[in-house]
Amino acid sequence: MHKEILEDIGEKELINRLEKFMPKNQASDDCALIKTQKDNLLINNDSLIENVHFNDITICARDLGWKAVVSNISDLLSSGSKKNIGITISLILPAKTEWVWVEELYTGINKALKEYGGIILGGDCSVGNEKIISITAIGIQGELELRRSACKPGDLILTTGIHGLSKLGFMLQSKFNFDDITLSQALINKSIEHFCRPKVNPNFLKNLVKTRSNKKITRIGCTDSSDGLFQAIQDLAIASNCKAIIDYTKIPKDKNWPIGDKWDKYYFFGGEDYELVFSLPKNWAKKLSKLDRNIKEIGFFTKGEPSIEFKDNEKKSLLNNAPFKHF
Amino acid sequence: MHKEILEDIGEKELINRLEKFMPKNQASDDCALIKTQKDNLLINNDSLIENVHFNDITICARDLGWKAVVSNISDLLSSGSKKNIGITISLILPAKTEWVWVEELYTGINKALKEYGGIILGGDCSVGNEKIISITAIGIQGELELRRSACKPGDLILTTGIHGLSKLGFMLQSKFNFDDITLSQALINKSIEHFCRPKVNPNFLKNLVKTRSNKKITRIGCTDSSDGLFQAIQDLAIASNCKAIIDYTKIPKDKNWPIGDKWDKYYFFGGEDYELVFSLPKNWAKKLSKLDRNIKEIGFFTKGEPSIEFKDNEKKSLLNNAPFKHF
Repeated sequence: MHKEILEDIGEKELINRLEKFMPKNQASDDCALIKTQKDNLLINNDSLIENVHFNDITICARDLGWKAVVSNISDLLSSGSKKNIGITISLILPAKTEWVWVEELYTGINKALKEYGGIILGGDCSVGNEKIISITAIGIQGELELRRSACKPGDLILTTGIHGLSKLGFMLQSKFNFDDITLSQALINKSIEHFCRPKVNPNFLKNLVKTRSNKKITRIGCTDSSDGLFQAIQDLAIASNCKAIIDYTKIPKDKNWPIGDKWDKYYFFGGEDYELVFSLPKNWAKKLSKLDRNIKEIGFFTKGEPSIEFKDNEKKSLLNNAPFKHF
Repeated sequence: MHKEILEDIGEKELINRLEKFMPKNQASDDCALIKTQKDNLLINNDSLIENVHFNDITICARDLGWKAVVSNISDLLSSGSKKNIGITISLILPAKTEWVWVEELYTGINKALKEYGGIILGGDCSVGNEKIISITAIGIQGELELRRSACKPGDLILTTGIHGLSKLGFMLQSKFNFDDITLSQALINKSIEHFCRPKVNPNFLKNLVKTRSNKKITRIGCTDSSDGLFQAIQDLAIASNCKAIIDYTKIPKDKNWPIGDKWDKYYFFGGEDYELVFSLPKNWAKKLSKLDRNIKEIGFFTKGEPSIEFKDNEKKSLLNNAPFKHF
């Protein structure tokens, strides 16, 4: 079967084809227009790079498109975006890329936009040696400003869900050998799902506003765990200039998650889970976690040098693990 | 001398260093915040890719930073942006990249922002095999909407300046052999300047508004010539569904520009000149080109299949040259 590659199609025809994935009134031009009515906007850019963040073995094009959108929406949510306006897509693709790959990518992109809101506002496409999907997403700032720097000593630290699954999913997709252990099929399926088709919870902000009793609080400490849970907590501690005390026993784990140092390491340093990690005054935290049962308290912030400590001394050695890094 | 490379610095320290190039109140977070007051925004993304758009021989890091900003601002201007709000920067760099290269890049970026307005709103940095600078720029839509699709039969076609210089500059920087001709030193200097440090005219929009007598006209056909003059005219013709007639004798050339088919080809298909190519009703066009002497009439639009024709039959063969393309 002849596979149609981009080299055969040519740049102009490629752009024409890509435009078919855009809403009809969003005509291609030099810029994309965003209509606003006295709103403040949030803007985020995230790039997925072949052989750094993905490869053809670990994830298919459709899932990659979905994931590229979700990773951006996760950042918007973690800043308090109440509505996604849309995205611009900057693609870099080798000339030998098959057209069907691009088509599948855009199908995944539009699937995620349909699920979470927003449209394709525009984009461009260039040739390069490796595939890169760079997405810029625009959202509208809601009434609560979620910021890394807004955690306060005394706040409880919470997370919207379970960590480590995406890392395990990546390892399974990479055919990593788990000879020493038998993983449950449920855990295997769930982990691959988390890695390939991560989800976010767009109701988080609504629930946060709903459970707020003190209207004077307009800024909340928050980030997402795209670079791992440890990195998220560290980012909050540094930006807010306070110390995080983590209660290991409270960390929400999948019921089939194995025990052991290695598995703790995947949990804390794995990355790409796209859960929110945030801090709230105690009363607010209790009300919110009652309303959304997936939200779990995992520790608290206190005065002190920006750092992370485990309440349980035995877990301290975990901190010696280097955080998720690409350089 | 020891050259500090990114691998030595590590991701976190790198991000800290990059933040020092940002305004102090634009703290790093998951998203950048854009404050707007009932304005419509224009958003543009342009990527510069190593070995496609640049390499270490043809352009230094500081000029590359300048050029990356200018190429985005050119797109904003060509849509009628009245003010640049700012940019987000997505960098992809090999781990062996020297820190001084990154520093120089940001120096060039900030130099262009100081010249044309806007701030660094945020960004991210990942490791990759080749350098990629992807910039998303945000501007405010002015009262005149400049769009590719707004040209009308009867409109004159105009350009803000001279083409081909950037292509010649690129060839000179690439040590291309011009054995058959002696180029004037003035042309050499000017061409390298155009390629490495292209400029835009931020007063264009003001002059356009100033010379408008019919306030009912709110949409003007316009694009920039980043992909070459021919491509710009073709984009306008296709988007506006009309035929362009170009008067070769009116094309503004540098006084030292050589004569010959090869040089015509560089002129029409070179690219990266960042001049505006636009169309206006005759009266408006005359008033504007009187106010800004760099603006030159080069032809007109007429009814017909979207296409380009030369008034001078002898120049028809020029159209056989393939447009600037990367795939």
